[in-house]
This record gives sequence, C-alpha cells and structure tokens, in this order.
Amino acid sequence: MAIRYELIKVCKQSGARLGKLYTPHGTIETPIFMPVGTQATVKAMTPEELTEVNSQIILSNTYHLYLRPGHKLIERAGGLHKFMNWDRPILTDSGGFQVFSLGPLREISEEGVEFRSHIDGSKHFIGPEKAVDIQNSLGADIMMVFDECVSYPAEYDYVRASLERTTRWAERCKEAHNNTENQALFGIIQGGIYEDLRKQSAEEIIGLDFPGYAIGGLSVGEPKQLMYEILDSTVPLMPEDKPRYLMGVGSTDDLIEGTIRGIDMFDCVLPTRIARNGTAMTSQGRVVIKNSVHTESFEPLDPECDCYTCRNYTRAYLRHLFKANEILGLRLFTYHNLYFLLGLMKNIRQAIKKDCLLDYRDEFFRKYGHKL
Amino acid sequence: MAIRYELIKVCKQSGARLGKLYTPHGTIETPIFMPVGTQATVKAMTPEELTEVNSQIILSNTYHLYLRPGHKLIERAGGLHKFMNWDRPILTDSGGFQVFSLGPLREISEEGVEFRSHIDGSKHFIGPEKAVDIQNSLGADIMMVFDECVSYPAEYDYVRASLERTTRWAERCKEAHNNTENQALFGIIQGGIYEDLRKQSAEEIIGLDFPGYAIGGLSVGEPKQLMYEILDSTVPLMPEDKPRYLMGVGSTDDLIEGTIRGIDMFDCVLPTRIARNGTAMTSQGRVVIKNSVHTESFEPLDPECDCYTCRNYTRAYLRHLFKANEILGLRLFTYHNLYFLLGLMKNIRQAIKKDCLLDYRDEFFRKYGHKL
Repeated sequence: MAIRYELIKVCKQSGARLGKLYTPHGTIETPIFMPVGTQATVKAMTPEELTEVNSQIILSNTYHLYLRPGHKLIERAGGLHKFMNWDRPILTDSGGFQVFSLGPLREISEEGVEFRSHIDGSKHFIGPEKAVDIQNSLGADIMMVFDECVSYPAEYDYVRASLERTTRWAERCKEAHNNTENQALFGIIQGGIYEDLRKQSAEEIIGLDFPGYAIGGLSVGEPKQLMYEILDSTVPLMPEDKPRYLMGVGSTDDLIEGTIRGIDMFDCVLPTRIARNGTAMTSQGRVVIKNSVHTESFEPLDPECDCYTCRNYTRAYLRHLFKANEILGLRLFTYHNLYFLLGLMKNIRQAIKKDCLLDYRDEFFRKYGHKL
Repeated sequence: MAIRYELIKVCKQSGARLGKLYTPHGTIETPIFMPVGTQATVKAMTPEELTEVNSQIILSNTYHLYLRPGHKLIERAGGLHKFMNWDRPILTDSGGFQVFSLGPLREISEEGVEFRSHIDGSKHFIGPEKAVDIQNSLGADIMMVFDECVSYPAEYDYVRASLERTTRWAERCKEAHNNTENQALFGIIQGGIYEDLRKQSAEEIIGLDFPGYAIGGLSVGEPKQLMYEILDSTVPLMPEDKPRYLMGVGSTDDLIEGTIRGIDMFDCVLPTRIARNGTAMTSQGRVVIKNSVHTESFEPLDPECDCYTCRNYTRAYLRHLFKANEILGLRLFTYHNLYFLLGLMKNIRQAIKKDCLLDYRDEFFRKYGHKL
C-alpha cells in the first residue's frame, strides 16, 4: 500500500479535516498546499529552501518531464526524487491538463491525445497507458489518472461525454499501473459546473476504488461562488477515509473555502508565478514591488513575517532587484510567497484543531480582504 | 585609517605575497579574488551563499548603482552594506571603466565624462569629484579613483596624455574624498602596454600617496604574455607595504601568474558570467553543460569538488536545468564557479605559505591546462 490516509479530526465549525497522509517518502499533515515544480525544480528554489519554507510535498508535471529531459532518462537517474535531489513526497499530474491546453496543437480520440510539443513541434501521443507508464518511470509517491479538464464554459452534452471518457480512461490507467506498492494512483472527478454530472463522475470514479480522489476542472474561469457550490455538492460524495485533492487551486480565499468544505490537498502555480512577477502575498495584502511607492521604503516586505526575505531585506532593495532584473529578486519573492502560503496552511490546520476555522476565515478576510 | 595592509611573507619561489588586509568590515587574507556584484547583488547568490563559498570581499559598480537605484537612496538606506545585507568588506570601482565603455554615448573632457545612461538614454556627468561623492555615499571599504582605462591597442601619445589626465584626476579624487576614516581610496596605475608610460604613471600615482594601488588597463585584449611583462616591470615599482590590485582579471592562469608577480587582489565577472552561460570551471577543465555528452551523465559536475552543487546534483540534472532555462541552473553553476575560484585562491595562499607557488603552478597547468 503506497499511501494511507488517517483522518485525525473534523472541525466542529465546518467540514474541514485534519489528517495525515503516510507516503513512502514521509508523512504529510493535511490540509496541505503543494508548490509546483513543473520541470523537476520549483522555480528559483533549492530543495533545502523548500524544506525551510515548510513544503511537505511538491508537484511536478508529467507532460514537461516526458518532453524534457524524458521520463526514461529520469528513470535511469534513479527516479525523480533522486534526479532533483528532493527526498520528501512528490505528486505528478497526468499530463492531461497540459496536452488539452495545447488547443489547435492536439487532437483527442478515444485512444488518447495526439499533440505537438510546445518545444520543437514534434508529434507525440499520450493516452491513459502512456500517462501511467511515464509516471511509473518518474516514481512519484502520488500519480494522477489521465483525464480531460474541460474548460469553462462548456456545453452540458460535451461535459457528459468527456467525463464518461475520463471514467473509461481512469479504468485503463488503473489497469496499466504496475507499481501500486510504492505509488498511489488517484482518480479525478470531472463534470464541469453541472451538479448531476459531478455526481455521475464521482460515482463512476469512486466505483473504481482509488486510494485518493481529486476534483478536477474547477478554477478554470467559472465564478468562485459556483466553484464553492460544486464543492458543497461533490465533496460529501467522496469517501471519508481517502484524501481529497482540489486541483489547480491556490489563492488564499480558495484555500480557506476549500478546506472548510473538506478538501485536504491543493496545488497551484499562483504563489510562485506572481512572485517572479514581483508580487508578494503579505499581511498587508498584495504588494506589487515595482510600484514607485516602495522606492524609498526601508520596511520589510511584510512586517508581520519572519521569513528569510522579510528578516533581511527592505522593500527598497527588493524593488531595486526587480527593476534591475536581478535573479535574487525572483528567489526572495518565491521564498516569501511559499513561506506565506504554507504558513496559512499551518494556521488552517491549527484552526481545525481548535474547532474555529470559520472564525479564522472571518478574521482573515476582515484583515486581508479577498484579494490576497 | 580605513585599511591597513600587513605583509606576512613573500614566497621563496616567486614574488607572491601572503598578507592581511584589515578593513572596517573585517580582515581579508590576500591574495584574494573578489566576486563582482554589479548591481548590489552577485548575480543569483545570497550573501549567505557568498560566505559559504568563502568570499571575503566583493566588488560593486559605481556607475550602475549611481544610475539605479541611485547612490543617495543607498546612502539613506544606511549604505551599500546594509542595503544589500552584506557585512563583509566591499570595494567599489569608480565608474570610469563603465562610462568609457559607453563608446559613442560619452564625451571626455578635462573636467570628466559626459555620457548617456544605458538604461534610459538620460544625460549624466561623472568626473573625479562626482565619482568620489558617489562612492562616499555608497560607503564601501575600498574606493577607486576615477581613471581612464585605455583599450588595446592604443597609440603611445594617446596613452601618455590619458595617463597624465588620470594622474590629475587622481589628485582631484584625493582632494574630494571626505571619509578617509572609514573608506580607503586606491590609486590606479595606467600606461597601456608601454613600459616607460607604466613607470611614469606608477611614479606619479604613488607620489600622491594612496593606501593601496591598482594596475588598470590590462586584460583588455592584449596578449597574455604582454600583460605578464607589464606586471614584471610595474609591480616592483609599487610599495611593499600597500596592497596591489590587478583590475578585471579572473581566469585561473592569470590569477596564478598575477600572484606570482606580487599581486594581492583580483576581480572579474568571468566565473559568474560563464556560470550563467552553463560553463563550469572544474578539475577536469571547462565543462559546457549543454553539450549532449552530458545528457546521461550521472556524475557530479566536478568529481573532485565538495561544494553544494557537486555534492547534490548530477551533470544530467544540471544540463536539464540549463536546457529548460531554469533559474536553479544559474544558481548552482554560479555557486560552483565561485567555490572553485576562491578555492584556487586558498590553494595559492597555501602554496605561498609553503614557498612552492611555482611548483603549484606547474602542477596546476599540467593537470588542468591553460584553458580553465
């Protein structure tokens, strides 16, 4: 058994769960946010720094690693953990999201997806079996089934046909998976914004019995309220003894609202991507460091933060680094944003422990607003 | 007295000197190489990492900091050390080299140089007084006089006129310097490749009595042998009780040949610049990591190196980082190259201590060649 989920407690104020996820590379306290390391590196960070900011698990992208440097090379290197020098848990996505995002560069069939590489235009094919084969080579603790993430808005009939294919693909993925001892394969519930289709997908996917379940196809353009409603109706259909993963979600309000609805795992490029753009998540709201108001600010980026960046550098210096296109700026902002967001997850776990997550949410939004 | 040089010993095999340079921010063991932090950051490195790779002193560029973020802002921030979070010694150049490098964007007069910013094209003027004023604001432990670094080749008459103006400028710099208590102003000997002009410049500059002397205008395109000959004739003219700094030199052979001729300090962008280009200085010669020969190499970058990069990553992974344009690649290569070069300086100091620097040189060139 590659992973085991232990439910520690449910918050008395909400559906939020405190849990532990045991994996071959260590135990994860949930709910948790997973920083994204697309190309076998969380951009600008060393593994040691990821540990310093309290990353318990990271995500890496199958599509990218398949194209470059190639999953077979990573397998020969001893697997993704060894290749990238990260000994804590890793989750790999299935590549589905990326190949479907290629738009005119891809063609879908029942068999899988034919697509052209964004790097050199070369032709490739990934279907369920291939997606699992690649992930078996990478050796992540958690793998994802190959699915279609339907964009928003989408017609009811398309969404239904897509989710049914996703179910058939999930079955083929399960069949193809050959390392269940060390790698857990998670199913993905699709169904767009249609409550009955979400129900259909949940029943079909859960019927296949995976060690964990994700909700895919949310945070793809729909109003936030709609996402929360889908969570309200879908999460209760998911088993209590398995981890629940909301894919591609990482804004502070969504992390709080998601955990309140019983989600255990999240991932998103948001904190690291906006960091490289010079935007920080802070206790004073978002700070856009290139704004001229920071030119002469000798204050820390976030006066309430005790991370390396905030202890050692002023906004004036950080602004200078970004204005001058210096790599150190990208490093210091990425470090801070991950520290901030993983600190938020720690606070959320603390609030669940104390049965006060709704109070925590209200205070958080009063203090920081929804725009963090 | 801002600095004091102590000559510990001279190598019995050569003119190489072991010394100590006492500064307001700590003591430097010489001979030493100074990593370059052009824009108040050694590209891709934190101050802590600079300390890990044994940087005793770094160099920063007056021209760049004057334009962005501005020396007055850095002064209000508490000086360059505090601004960039580096508490070891700093040397700032005078800006002369950069403004003269602007080519058609600058105009020289007896007063100084009028030039246009490479950032926004705005008009500026730097002369000796201004160069000193900027450096007083930055607050580096060691400042440099405003000089003209003549490119190679150059006509005898031009070089003579230029060095004589450099002497007049050095006098004005000394006059303008208002923080002799905490900042040492070094003179610069010019004279191109003409032995008699070097002698003239040395006599004039040394006659002004500075606490340290640099040799400028070498490693600007002339054959290496010619540079060594100029060192052979110029260094003996320099006082024994003051530090000697060879500007802009940082290849391994030049560091060894320079110390043999009695140089105490060096700086160069070479190790950090080639690092960002994916080229490493190693005990097996230069490694160009993008070469396909490294695709499947699960060996360290340098098997004889014990730096963070070489202890934790394979060439295959490092190659992947560079092929994928990942920031971590720039970090790991910069780290390694500085560790390697500062390790070389340590070995040189050790060899001087043991009176065997010529033997060390021969062995080094036999092992690594001249192309490192």
